[in-house]
Amino acid sequence: MKDKKYFLAKAQENMPELHCKNIIPDATEFIGSDGDSVLLDFGEHAVGHFSFAFDRVDVFVDAPVRLIVKFGEDMREINDDFSQYNGVLSKTWLQEEIINLDYPQKITMPRRYACRYIKITVERTTRPIRLFDFSFRASTSADISVLKSAKTEDALLKKIDRVATNTLKECMQTFFEDGPKRDRRLWIGDLRLEALTNYYTFNNLEIVKRCLYLFAAGERNESGFLPSFVYETPYYHSGATHIEDYALLYVVSVCDYFEHTGDTEVVNDLLEICKLQLESFRATLDEKLIATKQDGWFSFIDWCSGLECMTALQGVYLYTLERFAELLKVIGDEEYEKYSVLISRVRSASEKYLYDESKKVFVNPLDNGQLSVHSQVWMILGGVINGEKAKKLLLSCLDNKEFKQPVTPYMHHYVIEAILKLNMKDEAVQYLKKIWGGMVELGADTFWEAYIPDDLDFSPYNDRMINSLCHAWSCTPSYFIRKYGL
Amino acid sequence: MKDKKYFLAKAQENMPELHCKNIIPDATEFIGSDGDSVLLDFGEHAVGHFSFAFDRVDVFVDAPVRLIVKFGEDMREINDDFSQYNGVLSKTWLQEEIINLDYPQKITMPRRYACRYIKITVERTTRPIRLFDFSFRASTSADISVLKSAKTEDALLKKIDRVATNTLKECMQTFFEDGPKRDRRLWIGDLRLEALTNYYTFNNLEIVKRCLYLFAAGERNESGFLPSFVYETPYYHSGATHIEDYALLYVVSVCDYFEHTGDTEVVNDLLEICKLQLESFRATLDEKLIATKQDGWFSFIDWCSGLECMTALQGVYLYTLERFAELLKVIGDEEYEKYSVLISRVRSASEKYLYDESKKVFVNPLDNGQLSVHSQVWMILGGVINGEKAKKLLLSCLDNKEFKQPVTPYMHHYVIEAILKLNMKDEAVQYLKKIWGGMVELGADTFWEAYIPDDLDFSPYNDRMINSLCHAWSCTPSYFIRKYGL
Repeated sequence: MKDKKYFLAKAQENMPELHCKNIIPDATEFIGSDGDSVLLDFGEHAVGHFSFAFDRVDVFVDAPVRLIVKFGEDMREINDDFSQYNGVLSKTWLQEEIINLDYPQKITMPRRYACRYIKITVERTTRPIRLFDFSFRASTSADISVLKSAKTEDALLKKIDRVATNTLKECMQTFFEDGPKRDRRLWIGDLRLEALTNYYTFNNLEIVKRCLYLFAAGERNESGFLPSFVYETPYYHSGATHIEDYALLYVVSVCDYFEHTGDTEVVNDLLEICKLQLESFRATLDEKLIATKQDGWFSFIDWCSGLECMTALQGVYLYTLERFAELLKVIGDEEYEKYSVLISRVRSASEKYLYDESKKVFVNPLDNGQLSVHSQVWMILGGVINGEKAKKLLLSCLDNKEFKQPVTPYMHHYVIEAILKLNMKDEAVQYLKKIWGGMVELGADTFWEAYIPDDLDFSPYNDRMINSLCHAWSCTPSYFIRKYGL
Repeated sequence: MKDKKYFLAKAQENMPELHCKNIIPDATEFIGSDGDSVLLDFGEHAVGHFSFAFDRVDVFVDAPVRLIVKFGEDMREINDDFSQYNGVLSKTWLQEEIINLDYPQKITMPRRYACRYIKITVERTTRPIRLFDFSFRASTSADISVLKSAKTEDALLKKIDRVATNTLKECMQTFFEDGPKRDRRLWIGDLRLEALTNYYTFNNLEIVKRCLYLFAAGERNESGFLPSFVYETPYYHSGATHIEDYALLYVVSVCDYFEHTGDTEVVNDLLEICKLQLESFRATLDEKLIATKQDGWFSFIDWCSGLECMTALQGVYLYTLERFAELLKVIGDEEYEKYSVLISRVRSASEKYLYDESKKVFVNPLDNGQLSVHSQVWMILGGVINGEKAKKLLLSCLDNKEFKQPVTPYMHHYVIEAILKLNMKDEAVQYLKKIWGGMVELGADTFWEAYIPDDLDFSPYNDRMINSLCHAWSCTPSYFIRKYGL
């Protein structure tokens, strides 16, 4: 297996170029004293650096001026009182600075922000001041000049596509970020969905390769699983969390990349790591070939409170196995046969032990009998159930209160993948419109990290203020609309 | 008269070079979590820029780190709760920043600070962090390599001299600042005392010339008086305040400069402006030749609450007239005679109308009969009273509760000047030790803006937190000790 140094060098080779542009807000100048504030609307979501100038109005400003500069991805965020924040993630992600300026100057704020709106409040000045030359230097590694319009005739789908490509664009920086307001790290779950949508939109292959290599360089845990996230700023650092479904989806990401590019060089570099992920997971199956809980495991699947994940995880495994076997077949790898046989056996086992014939539903003692959309969706995606039987199952569990329902566009993606796998295009469009269309109706410039139509205050972190409103895993409508001609 | 452009060009020509050095504090590293803090002691007062590095301890810091960085000229300031500040000057002068850092990095804070101590508190972090590489890049235009030790044998005077030269050094930047913690502008009152001390210590002539020209370029008010202060950052700006005693002391500063250098070129450039200051003041005298209050006047003299200034101002005028007449004589200016005659007449008038023979004290109806050390000192410095009579008067008013007492080292300077004018060296030393020695005993690294021995909480601005603890006008002990061989 290639070493970390090799993988990092490959990642570096594939550093995407950042495209920058200056965005000017609606307001050009503001004159204010203590307590006054100005709201800047840049007309679009942007990721980058804010600059402005300040000067005296008449008499020279004879003491430092203190400004509070607040950045909001939407107006709710601008109007939120950050001092009331009570979420589980660090309050330091809330985008607000208190700055003191000694004398008239042009200021370029050093940190990067993600926002459409900026509110500047004059906290203290001895004299009225003038703020002007507002500018936001926005960056992305997406080349918007290559982006074609979606072919759909449906007005709402057109809008959804625009917001989705915008979401992806904003998350494409020097790697696929999950959400530019917050984490700023590369997660496998987001990478997979971003790369997929990227193939049908900006088609930046460098950034995909870079991300695949960044994970390949990561520190695997004792079971052999890849880290679920890595940092690259200011130096490369491998995340300390190993999420099993993410480790598997890394393999799927490699398969997606190969399917799109036919690039055997990259696949050859990463093949052993992919096999290791599948072998590591194989080791957790019991004698009946059903995945068992391991000490210290963390499965993601969705940000659903109290979600039991073992059935879904079994589905992710099968989904990955199938994609990987296809890859091995195409590249002529000798282990194709082995994986092919394994798929059939695990599928049969899943049907035998996880499908309740009387209730017509997948349910698993390891999930404490919990019913969830997630289990059904991943069993469908894993190929355990097909055709009319699968359609009926899927349609019966969606919006059914007896089943845990998806809460993130990440999981909504896999719901739609399952719907489309079952050739239910109309239902897919309906679902897309319900979730992503709902956000569009609410004025979203980019798609959100979490969205529950009848609970706009929902947050996976106990406080909506910290939610990311431009989140990578929400960008896949463009993939569906463009790939499936919706 | 030369124009503003000419004067600013001359000021620019005489820009002094800044000497920089990196100072390292006692602590080299700090590891902390939420609420922890580290105190850095740099061992000396310094003016400049602070830098440090931060990194993870073990697990990568997965959210921005918020630090509170507080700068103190002394430990009282470090321990003060700035949120309780209730002074009349802007709270933004209190040196504290809240900064958010996204990832491990080396930080050079953009603003300049004046401090000996820095306290960094970890306001919020998700993981323990390590702070290290603490460094303070200190600047001054004083060249300490030319500084000789004072010749005094007196241990306390030696200490006072060291602290005084240090105070001056800290205030010498691209111009003579009054106090590097706060105003950062050039005031005439401070300039005069700094230049005087500079002649006997660092002897940087460029900075004096630069400051004299910066005022010459200033906008005079309708009476013809120079502005009392000017700004030079980020662009030249003339202050909107015109203090009459300061306008006169500008003339004295030119005389001091000529006396020290014999530089007729500078004097020729500034002569007309000097004459204008004296003529403008002359116009405020009544028919008895006593200065009268003018609409919109502001006299400084001292930061004494409720001080009446007309007698002192009359003294400042006489003091200036005498110095200016000497200058005119030496350079052979034809107006020497005119000024010479004027001095005698104003002196006689001052004695006749302001000296109360029965009470043996200077008192003025325009001061509402208020008795002050300030009036007596300035009448002595103005040459209205001399010899034993003057000695007796001066000694009787010092520490006499019937007289308003000086509160700033600025006024204490002129008290000592008066004492030495009367050849009372012992009393001068005693006074120096009482005021500046008092600060030394309290551990001062530099001398303070305001000091009342039995009221350490005194502030001219209603809150001690805002006081400058390194203030230019407090640097003159070195002048006295070195010039008079104390």
